Amino acid sequence: MTGGVSEGEEGVTLDLLKMKMADFAKERDWDRFHSPRNLLLALVGEVGELSEIFQWRGEVPRGLPGWKEEEKQHLGEELSDVLLYLVRLSDICGIDLGKAALRKVGLNALKYPVGVCKAYSSSKYGGKDHIVGSQSNGSES
Amino acid sequence: MTGGVSEGEEGVTLDLLKMKMADFAKERDWDRFHSPRNLLLALVGEVGELSEIFQWRGEVPRGLPGWKEEEKQHLGEELSDVLLYLVRLSDICGIDLGKAALRKVGLNALKYPVGVCKAYSSSKYGGKDHIVGSQSNGSES
Amino acid sequence: MTGGVSEGEEGVTLDLLKMKMADFAKERDWDRFHSPRNLLLALVGEVGELSEIFQWRGEVPRGLPGWKEEEKQHLGEELSDVLLYLVRLSDICGIDLGKAALRKVGLNALKYPVGVCKAYSSSKYGGKDHIVGSQSNGSES
Amino acid sequence: MTGGVSEGEEGVTLDLLKMKMADFAKERDWDRFHSPRNLLLALVGEVGELSEIFQWRGEVPRGLPGWKEEEKQHLGEELSDVLLYLVRLSDICGIDLGKAALRKVGLNALKYPVGVCKAYSSSKYGGKDHIVGSQSNGSES
Repeated sequence: MTGGVSEGEEGVTLDLLKMKMADFAKERDWDRFHSPRNLLLALVGEVGELSEIFQWRGEVPRGLPGWKEEEKQHLGEELSDVLLYLVRLSDICGIDLGKAALRKVGLNALKYPVGVCKAYSSSKYGGKDHIVGSQSNGSES
Repeated sequence: MTGGVSEGEEGVTLDLLKMKMADFAKERDWDRFHSPRNLLLALVGEVGELSEIFQWRGEVPRGLPGWKEEEKQHLGEELSDVLLYLVRLSDICGIDLGKAALRKVGLNALKYPVGVCKAYSSSKYGGKDHIVGSQSNGSES
Repeated sequence: MTGGVSEGEEGVTLDLLKMKMADFAKERDWDRFHSPRNLLLALVGEVGELSEIFQWRGEVPRGLPGWKEEEKQHLGEELSDVLLYLVRLSDICGIDLGKAALRKVGLNALKYPVGVCKAYSSSKYGGKDHIVGSQSNGSES
Repeated sequence: MTGGVSEGEEGVTLDLLKMKMADFAKERDWDRFHSPRNLLLALVGEVGELSEIFQWRGEVPRGLPGWKEEEKQHLGEELSDVLLYLVRLSDICGIDLGKAALRKVGLNALKYPVGVCKAYSSSKYGGKDHIVGSQSNGSES
């Protein structure tokens, strides 16, 4: 076990994806294209493709009931494209994405204490204010 | 080793982040807000915040030389926000993001064979066509 | 009538906004920040803020019934921010946005002929295929 | 002169585009697809396509020197797609986009007074702090 980069039963690590992306670019001589802002715009492009999957559907229930297998596979590909550019962008910027993500989860937990959020969340649905503002609650980021 | 969700030396897995996000939402009674399109729009919001970090800087070199520590930390937070919503969106849609990402890397390798891409990439810089189109090459997605 | 840039009864033209943005930047000595990719990333940032308004609401009916006046005003500001950067980006790129938009409406009309689209649109709702794909129909772009 | 919706010498108004989009949707029986969040996601999709045009180019000079005519035309189409969905989204939300945009330009002028911004902008380039933060200055939104 070499830590963080094994493939298999242990689950896919961000480090494994980082290494795969780095190898991929190096083998194709694409490192020079992978500047931070190039990668960021590529990521925005992929977020656009992800949005296109959902754009004319109206509300979509959890678990995507009724979606064909090929539609789910396509969705998985677009989610992956966003992830892969995000991993690559982080690497090129010298950010340890896994570490940063764990830290952010911790910060979110401090920002949104369990008791307060749960009570607030419940009261909203007993009252009239059914619109959940992004600044005031309902968001962990 | 419990497989994919341990925290520490082995690197951060997507499954670990998925579980943390699921617990986070459950504890706060926020599951009902986490519909696919709500999460997608939240992700777009975070991509916007990520873009704001880079928007007035002109081109930014790899490794972010000259950035203050607090700027890098802020960047890590915005990258993480995108990642966390991406992980949560995938989970809510029933997509195994890690598995999908490995599969996509494999598809990209088939789509962009090493020899062809490297040669093409080199010839561009010997010639006049210095603009790299997203459809024709230069992109692994 | 001075053509395209008057303010008042005639409706707001894209040229008027273009001139206002150009003056705004010039007066503040901000022209040097307004490179194409800087403006594009600023636009992405504003699209993120626009998305945040809608992110936790679930489906939103047309006309926004139940929204407070201040919420609508906020929405108007975010829509405007996207528009203003779009106008500025077009100007900096040397694209006549109004002319391009009229041309694109014409192209869309050719791409989606009235009779075909209407029939197809109706049949979908008589049949089982209620999911509207972005590639196949339902989109004018 | 019918005010705001004439086509020709006077410049393209937002009202003209609004009417064209409304007619377009009505003729094709697409009104039912044009909910606020459907349109917003369609807009995000188009912003993605716009980003793809710029993603592998590195910094791009103003006026796009060296771009082929067909590349500029393609850019004009993507800028237009963003604009058309923005206009349509505003209409469906009951927001007068032209009026809102003029109001926002006024708010920006109050937020960024000419003298202060110009002095600040100049001093930055005399000093070492060449990075322009989005919060602190350099942005009119």
